[in-house]
Amino acid sequence: MHLRIAIIGFGNVGRAFAGLLQEKAGELSSRYNLTCAITGVATRRRGGFIATEGEALTLEQTGLPAEGMPPGAVLHVQDTLTFLRACPADVVIEISTLSPLDGQPATRYIQAALESGRHVVTANKGPIANFYPQLRALARERALALRFESTVMDGTPIFNLAEFCLPASRISGFRGIVNSTTNVVLTAMEDSLSLEEGIAHAQQLGVAEADPSNDLDGWDASAKASVLATVLMEAGVTPAQVERREVGAEAMRRLQAALPPGHVLRQVAEGRRAGASAHCTVQLETLPASHLFAQIRGTHSILTLHTDTMNDVTIIEGESGPRQTAFGLLSDLIAVVRFRALP
Amino acid sequence: MHLRIAIIGFGNVGRAFAGLLQEKAGELSSRYNLTCAITGVATRRRGGFIATEGEALTLEQTGLPAEGMPPGAVLHVQDTLTFLRACPADVVIEISTLSPLDGQPATRYIQAALESGRHVVTANKGPIANFYPQLRALARERALALRFESTVMDGTPIFNLAEFCLPASRISGFRGIVNSTTNVVLTAMEDSLSLEEGIAHAQQLGVAEADPSNDLDGWDASAKASVLATVLMEAGVTPAQVERREVGAEAMRRLQAALPPGHVLRQVAEGRRAGASAHCTVQLETLPASHLFAQIRGTHSILTLHTDTMNDVTIIEGESGPRQTAFGLLSDLIAVVRFRALP
Repeated sequence: MHLRIAIIGFGNVGRAFAGLLQEKAGELSSRYNLTCAITGVATRRRGGFIATEGEALTLEQTGLPAEGMPPGAVLHVQDTLTFLRACPADVVIEISTLSPLDGQPATRYIQAALESGRHVVTANKGPIANFYPQLRALARERALALRFESTVMDGTPIFNLAEFCLPASRISGFRGIVNSTTNVVLTAMEDSLSLEEGIAHAQQLGVAEADPSNDLDGWDASAKASVLATVLMEAGVTPAQVERREVGAEAMRRLQAALPPGHVLRQVAEGRRAGASAHCTVQLETLPASHLFAQIRGTHSILTLHTDTMNDVTIIEGESGPRQTAFGLLSDLIAVVRFRALP
Repeated sequence: MHLRIAIIGFGNVGRAFAGLLQEKAGELSSRYNLTCAITGVATRRRGGFIATEGEALTLEQTGLPAEGMPPGAVLHVQDTLTFLRACPADVVIEISTLSPLDGQPATRYIQAALESGRHVVTANKGPIANFYPQLRALARERALALRFESTVMDGTPIFNLAEFCLPASRISGFRGIVNSTTNVVLTAMEDSLSLEEGIAHAQQLGVAEADPSNDLDGWDASAKASVLATVLMEAGVTPAQVERREVGAEAMRRLQAALPPGHVLRQVAEGRRAGASAHCTVQLETLPASHLFAQIRGTHSILTLHTDTMNDVTIIEGESGPRQTAFGLLSDLIAVVRFRALP
C-alpha cells in the first residue's frame, strides 16, 4: 500500500516524524508492505506547500521557506483549509499548535480532513478532549481512521495498548503522572533547586514554555485526563470538568517546603468511573519516597490502568522528546494500514 | 466467526479461562463478532473428553470426571495425541503441565495440533524457549497462528505489545523481575521473615511449588529470558544458555544478611543483543530502595524493553493469579480472529 501524507504543523515533532519515515522506510516496506510520500506540508507561518512534480516533497524541501522551493516543484497556498482540500493525501497528520482548552484551530482541520475523505492522525489533545464523540461519528460515517496515540505520554502505547492488547477488558479508572514540565520542576526542587530555578531548567531542556502556567496549573494534565476518560471509559469529561485541586506554582512551593522527611511531591492525574460518566482530578500529592510514582523523575511519565481482567496494568515512558511523539504518529499510521483501525 | 476450542490441561488456569470465555461471551460477540465453544478437554489424569452432542461441553462438564459425564454426551479417549486429532477444533489451548527445560510433552502437543491444522495458543514457556524456530516454521507453512502471551508475566501485554504497539521498532535489550515465587520470598524477607518462612508464605499463597528450587535457582526466569530473547530479538538463546549468577536459596540468605541499609534484593533477568545472538543473565541484585525495581513486591512483575524508537518502555503487572494467565490466552485467541495474527 502507498500512503500519501499531508502534514499540518511542522515544528520539532513534524521534522522528527519526517525523519522517522525516512529512517524506517525499509522496515515499513518489508514488514508492513507500506510506502509513504509526504505530498504536502502546511504551517501557520509559511502557508501550505503541495508537491506538484513527482509525488513527494523531499525531507529537505519540507523545511524550506517558500522562496527556497525549486520553481514549479510546489504549489503554495496561504490557507490551511484550502491546503487540506487541495493536497492529494490519504492521511492527514495533524500536529498544529493549538489552544488545548478549546481545541481550535486543530478541530476545524480534523473535521475538514475527514470531510474530504482523509484518515486523520493527530497529536493534539484539544480536539479529542472536547469533540471526540462528534469527530468519531464523522470518521465512522465515512469509514475513516481517527487516531491520537501521541496525545498522552507521546508514543507510549496507551490507546493502542487498550485497543489491541487489552481486548474484552473494562477499564474502571486510571492514575498517572502525565505532565513533563511539572515533573521536571518537581524533580529539580527535590534536588534542592528553587521553584524558579526548576522552571528555568525545564525551559532550558525545551520542555517548558516561556509561560509554564498551562502545565503547572494542571491544564495540560486535565486535558489528558479528559482524553483518557473520554476514550477509555466512554465518559464525556471536558478538561474544564476535571477537578484541579492544589495545583500551580504557589502550591508547589508551599507543599515542597512542608514535605515530611522521606516524601516527595508529584502532580497526579486520576479518573474513576462514576455511573455513566467519570470523576477526574489533577492534584499535587505528597507521596512516600518508596512509592512507585516517586521513582518517576524528569521527563519520565507513568500511567496505571485499573481493569477487570488484568487488575492494574502500569506503563512507564522513559526519556522523551520529539522523536517519541513522532513515533506515536508513525505507530498510528501503521495501525491504519495494518488493522484498518477505525474508531 | 465461530471458534471451536480444545483445551489440553485443565487446572486452575483452564478453569479460569473457561470461566472468562463465559463471562465475556456478550462482549466477544458484540465487539469482535466472535462466538466460542469448548469442544474438548484433555488432562493427563482423566484423558480426553470430546463433546459429541451439540457442539460444546458445558462449563460444568469440563470439570467432571469420566463417570460423571452424561452418557453419550462425550467421547472419551485415553491419549492426548489421539484426542488432538479426533477433537473437532479450530484452536488448541495448550496449558498442560510440563518440564520447562525440555519443553515436553507440550512441544509434541503443539506440533500435533499445528500438523492437524489447528491454531495454537499456549502458556507454556518450554516449547517457545527451546523450539520456537521449528514451531514457527511449521505454523507459517500451514498459515496457522502460534501465540504465547501468557508465557511471560501472565496476560500482561509483552509479545502483543511489541507486535501490535511497537511497530517498526528494534528491541535491543530487556530487564525485568519475572519470577513471582522468588519475589514473594524476597519481599517476605524484606519484611523480616526468614527464608524458610518466606517460602512457606509463597506456598500458602499458591505461588510456590512444594520444591521451590526451579524458581529460586533462576530456571523459571531463565526460560522466560530465553523466550524474550528468542522472540523479541530473534536470538536463539536456550534456557541453559542463560547465565545464572548468584541465584538460589543460599545466595538469597547470604545477600539478604549482607544488605547495606536502605537496599533490597531482587532477582533480575536481563538480555542484550550481542551480534546476531543475545547475552542473557539471571541474578540477584542489590538495589537501592529508591530503585524502580525495588517497588515491585510480591506477585507483581516488571519488564523494561530498550527500543530504538521509544527509548525505555516499562510495563508492570499488579496482583496476579490464574485469571491473569487466562486473560493472556483470551487476548491471544482474540488476536487470532481479529488480526489473523500469524507468526
